[in-house]
Amino acid sequence: MRIIGVDPGLRRAGWGVIDVAGGRLRHVANGVCESGAGDLAVRLARLHEGLAAAVAAHAPDAGAIERTFVNADPAGALLLGQARGVALLVLAQAGLPVSEYAPNEIKKAVTGVGRADKAQMAMMVARLLPGARAEAHDAWDALAIAVTCAHRAPGDRLAARLAEAAR
Amino acid sequence: MRIIGVDPGLRRAGWGVIDVAGGRLRHVANGVCESGAGDLAVRLARLHEGLAAAVAAHAPDAGAIERTFVNADPAGALLLGQARGVALLVLAQAGLPVSEYAPNEIKKAVTGVGRADKAQMAMMVARLLPGARAEAHDAWDALAIAVTCAHRAPGDRLAARLAEAAR
Repeated sequence: MRIIGVDPGLRRAGWGVIDVAGGRLRHVANGVCESGAGDLAVRLARLHEGLAAAVAAHAPDAGAIERTFVNADPAGALLLGQARGVALLVLAQAGLPVSEYAPNEIKKAVTGVGRADKAQMAMMVARLLPGARAEAHDAWDALAIAVTCAHRAPGDRLAARLAEAAR
Repeated sequence: MRIIGVDPGLRRAGWGVIDVAGGRLRHVANGVCESGAGDLAVRLARLHEGLAAAVAAHAPDAGAIERTFVNADPAGALLLGQARGVALLVLAQAGLPVSEYAPNEIKKAVTGVGRADKAQMAMMVARLLPGARAEAHDAWDALAIAVTCAHRAPGDRLAARLAEAAR
């Protein structure tokens, strides 16, 4: 099974694709889509184009995205919501089932504990996905979301493998 | 010039198309897209499909949308943002310039004052667009947004016409 994780943001959206087979994870690709300058609508269209291209290029079977933590900033939530809506749309338009995971679920799936900073997360994702290289935190985050989906997907045997790697 | 106004919401999105020529407004069409039941991503895809079909059917030259009033509810802002992002995306994908108007700008453009309830707004829009019929408030709201765009678009002579009709 091939999974794409997406970490949406209005300025840039990270994505990461992994393969899961027989309890093993393999890094496939990752990247970041920049929305660039201009009107909001045009920026959202660039995000859509970039994410749709990643989906088309790597043909995942499933999508995963972070369940957004809504803080006390409604204006920020609205902006993020717009980017997140576009990311969800790309996955649905490709006919992918979409799983959502809370931030602490993702941290727990990747590091074994519910708390970890971005650097720790990236290091653990790199350990779980040998050979993976990503330049941006957004791409590492997206890979972490994909790993979480692999971990949490029913009927697999990844939990033990992940727990072992996290030791 | 043909303008499409969009009133996005996660449950349903209203749209309304008008023509502007020589300071005159003409109703073209309006409707509502329902997102239906199911996963968020699937619902957003339905909204995208419905709005894109309206744009394809009526070939507007410009798009207009309400500048969302962000209240104290971040969770609601996130949900609305997701639907709004999809609506903006549809307009940008069709290559349309998109104008955004604050709620009180829309009320002022349509009724001449910054305050009006939904029934008053619908009545004024119906007066400005003879023959227009819409079943849902969302569609009337979308037509009001299109009327605002016609009013505010530079170089037209609609302001006098609108002020006259609002008397």
